[in-house]
Amino acid sequence: MIDFNIPQPNSDLDAAIDHKIDFKTKPIGALGQLESLAKQICQIQETLSPELKKPSLVVFAGDHGLAKEGVSAYPQEVTHQMVLNFLSGGAAINVFSQQHGIDLKIVDAGVNFDFGTKSDLINAKIGMGTANALKNAAMTKDQLDLAIQKGAEIVNQIHASDSNIIGFGEMGIGNTSSASLIMSHICNLPIDECVGRGTGINDTGYQKKIDILRQVQEKHSSISNTAELLQAVGGFEIAMMTGAMLQAAANQMIVLVDGFISTSAYLCAQSIHPNIQHYGIFCHQSDESGHQLMLEYLGAEPILRLNLRLGEGTGCALALPLIQSAVEFMNKMASFESAGVSNKH
Amino acid sequence: MIDFNIPQPNSDLDAAIDHKIDFKTKPIGALGQLESLAKQICQIQETLSPELKKPSLVVFAGDHGLAKEGVSAYPQEVTHQMVLNFLSGGAAINVFSQQHGIDLKIVDAGVNFDFGTKSDLINAKIGMGTANALKNAAMTKDQLDLAIQKGAEIVNQIHASDSNIIGFGEMGIGNTSSASLIMSHICNLPIDECVGRGTGINDTGYQKKIDILRQVQEKHSSISNTAELLQAVGGFEIAMMTGAMLQAAANQMIVLVDGFISTSAYLCAQSIHPNIQHYGIFCHQSDESGHQLMLEYLGAEPILRLNLRLGEGTGCALALPLIQSAVEFMNKMASFESAGVSNKH
Repeated sequence: MIDFNIPQPNSDLDAAIDHKIDFKTKPIGALGQLESLAKQICQIQETLSPELKKPSLVVFAGDHGLAKEGVSAYPQEVTHQMVLNFLSGGAAINVFSQQHGIDLKIVDAGVNFDFGTKSDLINAKIGMGTANALKNAAMTKDQLDLAIQKGAEIVNQIHASDSNIIGFGEMGIGNTSSASLIMSHICNLPIDECVGRGTGINDTGYQKKIDILRQVQEKHSSISNTAELLQAVGGFEIAMMTGAMLQAAANQMIVLVDGFISTSAYLCAQSIHPNIQHYGIFCHQSDESGHQLMLEYLGAEPILRLNLRLGEGTGCALALPLIQSAVEFMNKMASFESAGVSNKH
Repeated sequence: MIDFNIPQPNSDLDAAIDHKIDFKTKPIGALGQLESLAKQICQIQETLSPELKKPSLVVFAGDHGLAKEGVSAYPQEVTHQMVLNFLSGGAAINVFSQQHGIDLKIVDAGVNFDFGTKSDLINAKIGMGTANALKNAAMTKDQLDLAIQKGAEIVNQIHASDSNIIGFGEMGIGNTSSASLIMSHICNLPIDECVGRGTGINDTGYQKKIDILRQVQEKHSSISNTAELLQAVGGFEIAMMTGAMLQAAANQMIVLVDGFISTSAYLCAQSIHPNIQHYGIFCHQSDESGHQLMLEYLGAEPILRLNLRLGEGTGCALALPLIQSAVEFMNKMASFESAGVSNKH
């Protein structure tokens, strides 16, 4: 796997950042979480006057061999159908990206479908879906390395176009199963605490999903590091997102984390390079039951709690205006002194 | 008090609204709270294709005689200083309104300051601050009626300018005390469960605030309806906001409720005319401790939980993009059929 060099932001400006926030015309702390967001962004950018440039969002799509076992409420062809929906602008992520001026890229990380030559689809196909993790490792070592590398390359291109904030979404029927398996291993939680209803399976399907994932865990009981974990149970879209997140942090970009699947990629990324924690903003807490536990494991405070469970990066797109508000108040609000307002007794 | 005629939205379109939401290209319910917002807005506007026109926000400012008793961490002159800050564009609400294209109006509902003839300040001054509620009723019956009427008039002007969504904020040193007293009476909760730190008083100040508010309650123990409550312990800005909210609902506008003070005005409005409940959207849950209890009393689900406690309508401004997202997905997302995506097994 390629090496990522993620710097720890220096803390020289911390006191000046706090002072600027505290002397805005408001009681101390009155802007709540927007204040901690403003501070984090100032730290990442090492400035008192932060700026969000060309907000970008990448949706990685991939298919899962495990989907054959019936772990999802939807058939596998929905992955490629939704990719076509993204390309024609009809999905939720299209609508929200357009609303907020987000530059949206769709990546074929390994969908089981031949898209031909679509100029608006980034072709990074690693394979026609992963192998069935119940029978084999989901991917080979070479496939994993290639996925990580391609994720990093895609981010480097976006960074070169002068973007400094990037969100990550996904599409892949069956990928909540991969995310649950990753979560169970990294957070060291029993699989049944990591499994939710995904796109909406019923009670029987839910129990079956847990049983199958237990069997997958038994099959791959000798995993000893994050690369092996991704290889055994990951998806191409999750592995590629892991590489993309790591490279975004290496570029000192703001990394917007979406829901359950996106956070599973972040878990892998943080386990590979803990310094990514300084760059990650957790956009929402998903309705998928395991997501809250993931966020607790990470000590993360999500921006939104809207019971979303759609993926695609929709939580990142919806949270963006609030992140922009954090930057706006930092740059544009008056201070007590400049406005001639009396401070506390 | 003037009579408000607030219609109950008819339910003829409810099944069609649900169908349109459920057949968008997403699992059922996957957009969480955005789906219930979309439905409410469709119901208010009696349409399947909702539209937000000229989002507006009114900040009512007023002073409180009770502030003389030391219930706030800030001196009373901060009310007028902050009004001047609003007028020169330096406050948080200016920044967030500008960010989201919100038409912002500032109203002098009764600030203890002579602003002269400022063309960008709406002069609806009822008095130079309320009377001290510890000694007398905060306002006379005539003052209350005038405040309600002026609130309604201001909203009618905004409605006439083709706005169909309006938020309400406030500024008034001491007004968390009024809000706590209103809450205690309407929600029937002991005063100490209704009192928070406001703009940030310390432990001694907090205990003193509770003691004073208990004395105010004893002084006005014979209150028998909402008008008497507002007269005894309200603020001019809270009474005017109550009239404004009622008129907005009467005009079938979307009513955006902000934090603790704004919700206290909403509590009065709903107690005067329960049909307002169909028009209210609760923008955020404040960090002010009583606000969560107010929302529970109302059975309200706030959009944001960012630990804001600033007032000014900042929660309304910050939540607006999410309300717009609810309308956008309703109008612009593809359906399973139009996108050629397979639905559930």
